[in-house]
Amino acid sequence: MAVTGEIKKTTVEFSDFGKHENEIVTIKGTVHNIRMMSDFAFVILRTARETVQCVYSEDFSSYRMPPELKEECAVKVTGKVVAGETREGTKRYELQIHDVEILSHPAAISPVVITKKQVQCDLNTNLDYRPVTLRNPRERAIFKIQEGIQRGFREFLTSQNFTEVHTPKINYAGAEGGTNVFKLDYFGKQVFLAQSPQLYKQALVGVYERVFEIAPVFRAEHHDTSRHLNEYISMDFEMGFIDSFEDIMNMETGALKYIMNLLKTEYANEVSLLHADIPEITEIPVIKFMDAKQVIMKQFKYQPTDMKDFDPAEEEMLGKYAKKKFNSDFIFVTHYPSKKRPFYTMDDPEDPEYTLSFDLLFRGLEITSGGQRVHDYYEQVEKMKRLGMNPEQFETYLMLHKYGAPPHGGLGLGLERLTMHLLGFKNVREATMFPRDINRVTP
Amino acid sequence: MAVTGEIKKTTVEFSDFGKHENEIVTIKGTVHNIRMMSDFAFVILRTARETVQCVYSEDFSSYRMPPELKEECAVKVTGKVVAGETREGTKRYELQIHDVEILSHPAAISPVVITKKQVQCDLNTNLDYRPVTLRNPRERAIFKIQEGIQRGFREFLTSQNFTEVHTPKINYAGAEGGTNVFKLDYFGKQVFLAQSPQLYKQALVGVYERVFEIAPVFRAEHHDTSRHLNEYISMDFEMGFIDSFEDIMNMETGALKYIMNLLKTEYANEVSLLHADIPEITEIPVIKFMDAKQVIMKQFKYQPTDMKDFDPAEEEMLGKYAKKKFNSDFIFVTHYPSKKRPFYTMDDPEDPEYTLSFDLLFRGLEITSGGQRVHDYYEQVEKMKRLGMNPEQFETYLMLHKYGAPPHGGLGLGLERLTMHLLGFKNVREATMFPRDINRVTP
Repeated sequence: MAVTGEIKKTTVEFSDFGKHENEIVTIKGTVHNIRMMSDFAFVILRTARETVQCVYSEDFSSYRMPPELKEECAVKVTGKVVAGETREGTKRYELQIHDVEILSHPAAISPVVITKKQVQCDLNTNLDYRPVTLRNPRERAIFKIQEGIQRGFREFLTSQNFTEVHTPKINYAGAEGGTNVFKLDYFGKQVFLAQSPQLYKQALVGVYERVFEIAPVFRAEHHDTSRHLNEYISMDFEMGFIDSFEDIMNMETGALKYIMNLLKTEYANEVSLLHADIPEITEIPVIKFMDAKQVIMKQFKYQPTDMKDFDPAEEEMLGKYAKKKFNSDFIFVTHYPSKKRPFYTMDDPEDPEYTLSFDLLFRGLEITSGGQRVHDYYEQVEKMKRLGMNPEQFETYLMLHKYGAPPHGGLGLGLERLTMHLLGFKNVREATMFPRDINRVTP
Repeated sequence: MAVTGEIKKTTVEFSDFGKHENEIVTIKGTVHNIRMMSDFAFVILRTARETVQCVYSEDFSSYRMPPELKEECAVKVTGKVVAGETREGTKRYELQIHDVEILSHPAAISPVVITKKQVQCDLNTNLDYRPVTLRNPRERAIFKIQEGIQRGFREFLTSQNFTEVHTPKINYAGAEGGTNVFKLDYFGKQVFLAQSPQLYKQALVGVYERVFEIAPVFRAEHHDTSRHLNEYISMDFEMGFIDSFEDIMNMETGALKYIMNLLKTEYANEVSLLHADIPEITEIPVIKFMDAKQVIMKQFKYQPTDMKDFDPAEEEMLGKYAKKKFNSDFIFVTHYPSKKRPFYTMDDPEDPEYTLSFDLLFRGLEITSGGQRVHDYYEQVEKMKRLGMNPEQFETYLMLHKYGAPPHGGLGLGLERLTMHLLGFKNVREATMFPRDINRVTP
């Protein structure tokens, strides 16, 4: 015996029903819902990305509706493809059931109703029953959109000669330091879970010039908010030979344009199901940090409590400002104060109180931090010392600088947070398949 | 100010030199090597995927060779593209240097020689200096090949309507149980690092029918061998509505064919640099476990010590058998004994001592384990009890079965191990950028 790798199809996809009008076909899927009428029944079949209406009637079904057919049975249905009309008058195919083969049976009825447009429970219950609630077409559409976002990020960067890399998640030192790292006993040594691929992706700029990674990161933050997770997927890139940190913002703008276009085309069903408002991007306005503070104080009459960073209310004001003044859903804020950015950030040579860094705000929420990095060895060692760090503890990291690094920079983008805000959710857990927070590590 | 996302190029790639013959262009890269001759010099420039020969001579260089130009300087070189000939007589473009702009300087000379064909040190030193040694063209080609493998896996499965997912790496229970899990303190709770996405990818078959994931997994194995890592990248897929477990082997065969073809076409430079012997796959032979044992005993006159599994010597014999009898670099071994496979494996209804499972051997090394899974709730609960497990501890996992699952199965494929064996290495660390083993967590 041998296998050839040729994929033979014995069943038909719903998206191909148009090619089979009035033909007898077989389709497989899960029984999503059964509605019994007086002399006929609707069996809604859930396939990988669609729901398909199948109709049972004694008029054309050669076969009695099997009494053991119930919701969440896996089935093969054979029948005739017929063109019907939706209430709005557009053509929609359905299947007149001739025969049903039951492939598997559930042992119990779902404790949560998943057959309505939305899952019928609160968020906590929804998360407790994730293996079931994700079967709801709206729920699973969220993570199909999420797939589209990361796929767009990858496809665009690949087209720009980036290399995809995987860096280790078990780290000897935390990238950003601080207390919010998870500690791990590693054969008697204390090690950490990666908070970010920062130090590795910089090292790899010396190897491939341009790299990206899509992978989990871990933050032991103790606070329980609607926008933080303790494990999330970070989409990171880092690029060398930049002329200025504007190159990084430009690359991100290109990636976002590509992603939004991909969602509108290849994820149109999911976009429509979720009523997602996908932004149009022509260009993204850029404002300096201190100018943004002026806008907040003068145009919004708001007195910031912290002149080194923005609070969520200020981010929202900047979102409104971007929409009103530039008709843009996005705005880059640049030149953050040096005190608030990590040790590897390059200071602005024209004013070292500020940095060649940026955040990207999307509809008033920060979704990216990025910037140019220090590439000169002596400059980086000097900056570390100024910040009270011990360069000897970063010997491996500093190999990049010591043995030569091109001017470079990059950014990180939280996949769940972007998904949340794109879909208009208030809680990042809605855009996370299996969220980890201070109270939840299961399912 | 605003950014548009249009990527403007001010420099030229080496791969486009053919379009610019006898023109003046600018190229950027890192000085890989300088060879001074009596009245001229070769400057070998390292770009993202190539090395480019640049020639300095007072005859055409308008400019004195800057004395501070040294290896690992990042530079922009302007010059004239000329066609030369390699020793073998094929056309090869080089650049006559007109001008050099130095963008950055290293602070020290690399302690390891990276300018020869191979890095000039032992494996341990190579790994200690990874940020530098990866700059060697042969070293970085290894991980470009690795990118190609995972890219091929992703592209093929995406074309087959698989959904890419990300499942949590912080887990409440270990998938396979056992002692080789890393434990983690999670806000006072004891949790584990994921050994495999097994339980999650099965749950998601109920949602998307077909899913895959490419992500790190963690195994706290205490032994230090040449083929094990404590953190590695697992390429997993899981597919529903299978007719038999042969569908899974067939899908893997399709993926492998696609991957090998991608390497031969889009990664041809790296394949050639590494003298990689990329296998031709037409079909992959299949042999049952007990028949394989017979081959080992009769044809190789070898007496196995364990009749439930293979030792490495037996795997090698089966590799030779596949090559000699079927002219195949691969062979599937099916129907492993039930005692040696995990609790979620489906037993063969015709002989429950054996399972509907398989391993794939590639040139005598196991690279995949896979099989059909139990999908019926009662059958899974029964099997757990028979194995002395407590089904109540797997309540979340069993939601899949309880609320309905299609017949399904899948597999896992270690990315580093496949890369290692494809490139003919003896140690998996050679195919791992930043390996984690019992003695190494740095760099």
